[in-house]
Parts: sequence; C-alpha cells; structure tokens
Amino acid sequence: MIPGALIALIEKGETFLIATHINPDGDALGSSLALSLALESLGKKTVLYDRDRIPDVYHFLPGHERFTNALPPGGPPLILLDCNEPDRAGLGEGFVSYSAVIDHHETMRDFGDIRWVEPAAAATGMMVHSLIEALGVEITKEIATNLYTAIAVDTGTFRFSNTDAEVLRVSADLVDSGADPGAISVALYESWSEGRFRLLLEVLGTLEIVGDIGVSFVTKGMLEETGTTPEDTEHFSNFPRIMKRVKVSAFFREIDGGWKVSLRSRGDFDVAKVADMFGGGGHRNAAGYKVSSDMKTAKEALIKAVMADR
Amino acid sequence: MIPGALIALIEKGETFLIATHINPDGDALGSSLALSLALESLGKKTVLYDRDRIPDVYHFLPGHERFTNALPPGGPPLILLDCNEPDRAGLGEGFVSYSAVIDHHETMRDFGDIRWVEPAAAATGMMVHSLIEALGVEITKEIATNLYTAIAVDTGTFRFSNTDAEVLRVSADLVDSGADPGAISVALYESWSEGRFRLLLEVLGTLEIVGDIGVSFVTKGMLEETGTTPEDTEHFSNFPRIMKRVKVSAFFREIDGGWKVSLRSRGDFDVAKVADMFGGGGHRNAAGYKVSSDMKTAKEALIKAVMADR
Repeated sequence: MIPGALIALIEKGETFLIATHINPDGDALGSSLALSLALESLGKKTVLYDRDRIPDVYHFLPGHERFTNALPPGGPPLILLDCNEPDRAGLGEGFVSYSAVIDHHETMRDFGDIRWVEPAAAATGMMVHSLIEALGVEITKEIATNLYTAIAVDTGTFRFSNTDAEVLRVSADLVDSGADPGAISVALYESWSEGRFRLLLEVLGTLEIVGDIGVSFVTKGMLEETGTTPEDTEHFSNFPRIMKRVKVSAFFREIDGGWKVSLRSRGDFDVAKVADMFGGGGHRNAAGYKVSSDMKTAKEALIKAVMADR
Repeated sequence: MIPGALIALIEKGETFLIATHINPDGDALGSSLALSLALESLGKKTVLYDRDRIPDVYHFLPGHERFTNALPPGGPPLILLDCNEPDRAGLGEGFVSYSAVIDHHETMRDFGDIRWVEPAAAATGMMVHSLIEALGVEITKEIATNLYTAIAVDTGTFRFSNTDAEVLRVSADLVDSGADPGAISVALYESWSEGRFRLLLEVLGTLEIVGDIGVSFVTKGMLEETGTTPEDTEHFSNFPRIMKRVKVSAFFREIDGGWKVSLRSRGDFDVAKVADMFGGGGHRNAAGYKVSSDMKTAKEALIKAVMADR
C-alpha cells in the first residue's frame, strides 16, 4: 500500500532530492529516473543524486546524465530509493530535513519520516510504477524504459523466483508504453568489451567447488591485464550457479585492504543471513560483505559459515 | 488467425498423431505436450511422436515420458508442430492420411491439408495457447508449465527481440494458471553438470573473432574428455554474442563426416539467409546448417558468406 503521506508530500512539494544507493544497479537507477521524470511531468523540480558515477552499461537509460554527486542547497525533502538508510547512499543523516523511503530490501533500520518498505516487491521499480500510476502521470517511453530496466535487472529478466504474474503484467504494460525488451536486453547483456569477456573466462577458471559452494575470485592484477574495471565484474557471481551442484556462489573481488564478497544462492538458502554474520547484508538469494583478511582465511570462514547454516 | 478447419478437425476427430521436429527444443516439446494434454482433456486420444530422445534438460516437462518414436497403426490425422514438413520430423510423407501444420518458422514448403504458419508468432507455444483457448479447454498447471517453457525457450526468457507485450501477458496468465517462472528457469538454465561447465570454458577458449563474426568450435574429443554429449552444447552458440563487437556467432560442432554449424545474430543481420546458402535454414537470428568439408575450409566459406551479405 502506498502511504497517503507520500502522495501528499509529492503533491504539496515543489523540489525534491531523489537519491539512491552507492554502487548503483539497474533497479536503483531506473526507479530513481522514472520517479524523477514523473515528478517533472507534474511540474516539480528534482535533483537526482548518486555518490558514485553511473556505470557505462546504464548509459542507455533516458535521463541518466542528470545524476549528480553534488547536493543541492536548501535541503529539499529527500526521497530515498532502493535502500532505506542515508549511509547506503553516502548521505549524512543530519543533512536531511524531511525524508521518505521507497525500498524493497529487508531491514533493521528505522530511518525516514515516511517509510514505505515492501520486501515482497520484486523491485523498487514495481513500487515506483504503482506510485506513478497513483499520481495519475502518463507513462512515457522514457519512464517505461527506466521502469522496465529496473524490473528486468532485479528479476534476472524474469528468471529469478521473485518473477510473478504481476511482474510480467506490469512489464507488458511498460512494453505497450514504449519499452523495448530486445533493445534493453542487448544493452544490459550483450554490450560487453572483449576484455570483460576474457576476464570472465579467467575468473571462471579460478572456480573451486567445495560441497555445493562455488568460490571464484578476481584480483586487481587480472583487471589490469584485461583493461577492465570493477564494474565489469557485475553478474560474475551468478555464472557458477548454472551448475546443478552449486547452490551457493561466492565471488571474491580484491579491494584496498581486503576483499569484497558477493554471494548468490538458489532456492531457499538465505545468503543474506550469511552476509549479516560478516557485517554485510542483502536479499535471500543475493547478498554481500567486505573482509580485511587474506583470501584463504576469508574463504575458510565463509565455507564454515555456509556449512553451519543448514 | 486459427483456421476454422483446424478447430473442426480437432472437434470431429478421436485420435491424433502429434509430432514435432527431430533434435527437439523447448518450444517443440512444450507446445506438443500442451496440445496433447488439452486434447486428452476433451476426451481425445493422442500419440506424441518424436524421432529423437527427449534431452534430459526437458525431463521436468509434465508428460514428457509419453513421447514415443514408434508410429501408431491406422494413420490417424497428423498435427505437426514447430516445423512444417514431415522430413523435419523424420516422418515419410506417404504415411500420412490427413495433416495439419502449426508452426512459426518461415518456409518454402507446401505440406499440410491445413496449414497454419505464423512467422510473426514468437513461439509455436503462443499459437497453441490461443488454440487451446479457442477450444475452451481449461489451462491446468501441467499445460501452463509446458506452454511457459515453450515461450521462454524461444524468446530467450524474454530477452530476444520477439518479446512483445502479448508474449509477456500470455506468460503472466500462464503463471496465474500455475507455471512457476523461477523453477522453470532453474530447470532450463541452472541444471548443468560440471562437465558441461568445463566444456563451455573450453569452447569459449577456442573463440576467434574476425570482424564482427565470432567463431568457436567443439570436437568429439572435447566431449569425450568432459564426459558430455552433443545436447550439452545447446545455447553455446549464444555466449559470444554478449560482446558488443560480435554481431554474428558461429558455433561448429564436429559430427560424423563434417560439422554442424549453429549461427546466432543480433539485430537485423539475417543468418537464415546465410544458412540457406549452405542448404540449411532457421530464423533471422538463429539458424544452422551442415558441412562436410574440414573446419578451416568451412570457416572461410562462412566468413566470406557473412561478409558478402551486407
């Protein structure tokens, strides 16, 4: 249910700060852009904030160039999307005068004057779609492309278990409004550089399977050799899951002073719980955390944690 | 438009031979099974025929065990699905007394007393869905799972350019009827053996890119080494397309006396035309043919043909 206070906030306000999480993905960007375009069509002003640069793969999203990492003066009301605490967006809590949260992640935090968190929603894009409909805004091709991308990214283009009839039906409506499924999929999945392709082969070559846990890694050296960047490793954690035997895939990426670990699981195994044990978080089938130990130690700790959680 | 004669044939008949093409894929099997289940719910008898064995990956389809490669006596009316000539199903033309064709492939042939061929349909499963609705049959979970799989396989689970609003809307209805998108995707895409995974890495290691054509291959020896079968190479031809540079992907598989070549393309480039030059066929973005020459010669001929067709 959309909070009435959120509708009222939008209808009364003139300028909004729309912010989303650092290291933004398609749901973060697409839902933020769609909401911004919808509010602007109602005559509002919006500032689109992300602390990090927008990954190249999302440069096909209409309006992406409007993202800034400079905060506007005056502290307009904040609408925080696809996360539910200012930390995740690289924002200080003190900065914000009034705030609304729109998110589908499970959470412990209690931030936000208006708090609309629906863990059952497949994507924040699904929530923004219903909000835009409730506001009576016409869904343009630009809005549709952003929302379709948001939903596609968070459902693995309709392959993950969060894909339900409503997800498919909303996506059908978005196609009617101008979203192009083939073109969006090419932009998302078939725009790799050769370096990225070679990096994937190298990373999959590091795969080690212990029980039903697949562990692969990438070092800074491998990125240098192939002329790639950390954002090129997006989705790498998913590949080992194509094997029936691999129920949990862990992908280690070398960072300053340690490793960033991405976890992906199939079915009921909850990797968010595992990530939480190491100070991270996420969803049941997709989560992550950071460690400062060497990889051997980190890997052993992870395997122990996964094995224990049965 | 469903031919009235097809509805009449089904309503009048008691027993039907439902056949589909050799080397069957998800659309062939899913649409045949769905039609069979629907006709049986109307009190008809059906024999499900495929010359080849059903690949393991499709053993989750309800009813798959009913496929036989023994032809029934008496020559009941044939309903041929996902192809439009008896040759493609390994059937002799003389055998058939009366025949109906339901297919979405473009074609030159003129087989079939009733001929329903819609190249604009994303999958034969879409056509069978509308036929089942026209027959007034309730779509059970079993029928829905078969039709959803048929549509999913032929649209790359909604990633190919044939994905439109109708495809998504029909799929949403099938989910309402009991199809499980997450479970079907796991069955289709996440049930690989380790051998198949290692084979993929080996095959991608053979990739050579000439202009915008990516050529990879698999030998019988590589299959032996990894303990895999030719059906394990399904979809391998798609992988190189993830690179922006690769607009046409050609995958050579060693067979007795030569090579089977699978072609995949992105966008407007028509690989069916190229396949046709070598005596094969298919769709615009997915086609194939066989050659008896050595691979070097075959590869050069292919690259020449692709380059010429600009």
